[in-house]
Amino acid sequence: MKIIRYQNQTDEIKYGILKSSKIFELQGDLFDDFSAGPAVAELKNVKLLAPIMPPNIIAIGLNYRQHALETGAQIPERPVIFIKATSSITNPDSEIILPKLAPDEVDFEAELAVIISRPAKNIETVEVSDYILGYTCANDVSARDCQKKLDKQWARGKSFDTFCPLGPWIETELDGMNCEIKSILNGKVMQKSNTSDLIFNIEQLVSYLSHNMTLLPGTVILTGTPEGVGFAREKQVFLTAGDEIEIKIAGIGSLKNKVVSETN
Amino acid sequence: MKIIRYQNQTDEIKYGILKSSKIFELQGDLFDDFSAGPAVAELKNVKLLAPIMPPNIIAIGLNYRQHALETGAQIPERPVIFIKATSSITNPDSEIILPKLAPDEVDFEAELAVIISRPAKNIETVEVSDYILGYTCANDVSARDCQKKLDKQWARGKSFDTFCPLGPWIETELDGMNCEIKSILNGKVMQKSNTSDLIFNIEQLVSYLSHNMTLLPGTVILTGTPEGVGFAREKQVFLTAGDEIEIKIAGIGSLKNKVVSETN
Repeated sequence: MKIIRYQNQTDEIKYGILKSSKIFELQGDLFDDFSAGPAVAELKNVKLLAPIMPPNIIAIGLNYRQHALETGAQIPERPVIFIKATSSITNPDSEIILPKLAPDEVDFEAELAVIISRPAKNIETVEVSDYILGYTCANDVSARDCQKKLDKQWARGKSFDTFCPLGPWIETELDGMNCEIKSILNGKVMQKSNTSDLIFNIEQLVSYLSHNMTLLPGTVILTGTPEGVGFAREKQVFLTAGDEIEIKIAGIGSLKNKVVSETN
Repeated sequence: MKIIRYQNQTDEIKYGILKSSKIFELQGDLFDDFSAGPAVAELKNVKLLAPIMPPNIIAIGLNYRQHALETGAQIPERPVIFIKATSSITNPDSEIILPKLAPDEVDFEAELAVIISRPAKNIETVEVSDYILGYTCANDVSARDCQKKLDKQWARGKSFDTFCPLGPWIETELDGMNCEIKSILNGKVMQKSNTSDLIFNIEQLVSYLSHNMTLLPGTVILTGTPEGVGFAREKQVFLTAGDEIEIKIAGIGSLKNKVVSETN
C-alpha cells in the first residue's frame, strides 16, 4: 500500500492512500488501524508533500561496505549514528537550496528511509517488522566542507534547510532488506546498489537504535548511502544550480528535486 | 513571566502562567500573542512537565572557555553543533535513567536553554531577542563512554531516554547574556559559572544557527556547559543510582532529577 501526504486544491494537508493515480481517504490512525475510504482526488491534482513530519531523523553513516571504503573510513564495529534537524525536510519535486554559507560542496546520498509506526524500545531483530510503518526514498544531502573540513560533528553540514528530501510516498509492503537503490544526477546513474549490501541491515539497525532510545511513531531512520557519492569520486562532483537529482528505489518509486542557489 | 507546562488533576496537559504559587490560564498562542487568563490551579496540585516539546534540540559543545580547556579541546573557531533526539526530553523531578547499554560513565552538564518563539532564518545578532520566547534550565546528560570512546559522533551518547531534563519553566524576562549557572550533585556544587563567560554568546549563537537552518518555533538551543563536569575532574565523578542532580540558574530556578538504573 502507498501512503501519501499531500496538499489539496483548498490547501488542506491530508494523508491518503494511493491506488494507481487515485487518492483514497485514509480513515483511522496512521500509527494504529487505518484503511482506505472513498476516493477523494486524482494524484495529478494535488501537491505531494514529504510523507511524514517526524519527531526525529536518525541517520546512519558508513553503512554500505563500498561507501565506507571509498571515504577512507574503516568498516564500523557498530552503527554510526547522527541526527539531522527535522527542519531540513523537503518535499518531492521541490528545490534543494545550496546555502549561501556553504554552496560549493553540496553532495547527494541516496538512502532507504524506514518509518516507525509505534514506540520501539529495546526490541529484538525478529520483532522489528511489527514496528515499521513502511519505507520511502530519502536524499541525505550533505555540505561536505562543513561536515568534513570545518566541523567534526556532522549535524550542521547535514541540517541545512531542504537537505532532507523525502518521498514520494510510504510503501508499506516493501522488503527493505533487499531492494535496488540508485541516485541519478541529470539522467546519469551515480550510485547503484542494493540494501542487501548494508553492513547493518534494517532489522539490526532498528533493534540497535531501540536499545539506545525510544523510537517514537513517525521517526525516520536513514539507513546509509552506497558508494558513488560526489565527493569520493576521482573527479569530485557536487550539486550546482540547475541540476536534477533523483533517488530511485525499486518497489517504492522516484524522488526528484531540482537544485537552486539561495537567493535572499 | 514564568510559562509552565503541566498535567492537571484530570490528566490534561496544559500551558499556564505561574505567579508565585498560582497557575493562570495561558490565553492565546504561545508562539504569538498570549496573556494570563483566570487562575486555574495551585502549583502544588499539578505535575510539572518539561516546558516545551521542541521540533529539534540543537546543542552547542565546548562553549565555555574553561570547559573547552578542561576537556583538552581547543577553543573552537565556530560553534560546535550537535543534535539531541527529542525523545531524550524528561520532566522536572522525574528520573534520569542510567541505560543498560551504557550505565557507567553518565555525566551531567548544566546548560542554559533558549526557546525560540518564531521562525528564525538568517537573522542578525541585534534581532535575536525578538525571536526568543524565554529560557529554561537544561541538563545535557551524556554517556561519556559512547560519546568519547565508542563513537566519534556525539548524537547517541547524548540521546538516551531521559538524557535531556528541561525545566522547571520558561522565564521570559531573563538576561540570558549574564546569569549564574550551577550544577549541584547531592548538595555539592560541581559546576559554577556565568553565561557571560560563553565563548559564543546567546545573540551570536542564535544568529549563527539561523544562518545554518530555520529555527522553528519551540526549538530548544542548549548553549553549552561550563567547567566542572564529572569526566574531566581529576577524580572522575559519574552519576549513580540514588544521586540527585540539580541544575540551578539565577533568575530561572532549579531543575532537579533523581538518578535510577534501567530495570526492565
